[in-house]
Amino acid sequence: MKMKASGHQCPFCHPGIRKYIYYEADGYLAVVNIAPVLPGHSLIIPEHHKTSITSLDAKELQLFMQVAQKATYILMKAFGTDAFDWSVQEKPEAGQSIEHLHMHIVPRMKNDLEKPGDWYPLVHQNDHEIIDSMNRPELGPDDLKSIVDKLKEVAGNIES
Amino acid sequence: MKMKASGHQCPFCHPGIRKYIYYEADGYLAVVNIAPVLPGHSLIIPEHHKTSITSLDAKELQLFMQVAQKATYILMKAFGTDAFDWSVQEKPEAGQSIEHLHMHIVPRMKNDLEKPGDWYPLVHQNDHEIIDSMNRPELGPDDLKSIVDKLKEVAGNIES
Repeated sequence: MKMKASGHQCPFCHPGIRKYIYYEADGYLAVVNIAPVLPGHSLIIPEHHKTSITSLDAKELQLFMQVAQKATYILMKAFGTDAFDWSVQEKPEAGQSIEHLHMHIVPRMKNDLEKPGDWYPLVHQNDHEIIDSMNRPELGPDDLKSIVDKLKEVAGNIES
Repeated sequence: MKMKASGHQCPFCHPGIRKYIYYEADGYLAVVNIAPVLPGHSLIIPEHHKTSITSLDAKELQLFMQVAQKATYILMKAFGTDAFDWSVQEKPEAGQSIEHLHMHIVPRMKNDLEKPGDWYPLVHQNDHEIIDSMNRPELGPDDLKSIVDKLKEVAGNIES
């Protein structure tokens, strides 16, 4: 089932997001976060606007999670680690600020943060700052292209 | 594919966990967290010991996520909300302390915490305290039975 995109007010429906894709399958995208909390911080999103993981039918849920799992493989390979965090927030009460369904995946390395749990307040802050882009510490276009290209290459090697 | 349980050193392999189950299907369990960060805080776990979401084959991943989605429906219905957080940590670098695969689901209500993002440091602290059970603010047996019974009843109503 495909839903109509809600228009470009939604940053995840904006066609500009396509340049951040490093893996996609069956209408689900793995994109680099333009303001990562740690290197490789990614988002898994449906290509078309959906707001809730609970609204996905069995097949859509399966495809979404397969892309999340595949993106995790790619990130683990690219960053030489087996540690990661997954997180989904739904509705503002839960900390969600962009209503287009998205799962955060953050590759983790030993001692990358003072305490392992410090990633989450950063993700949360990050989610808010995507809206308030003036305050967001974005990667520059060269760094973004570099990480997307690296992850695409790893994805290609895994596929082949 | 079923793996042998790793024994009772693992709190999620201990048979005592069965009394906290409110929904199960196809070898995946939804259990209440005995030391919830907020009411309804649940864990989705494979019945048999598995350590990583990346080790699940396509069918296992599908079944795991279907139980997570179903548990989310049950919690949303039981708590009269549509807001929740999902979180998976893998490996100590990512904040995981029990190596048996588990996803946290935390139902959220307006103003349940001072800031919506405050749930995560609590989950993280909670994960550590499951090991260090002397410091854990556990629910008493009556409160545990009460929440398990309530969620089982909601699950039964959804099923029928």
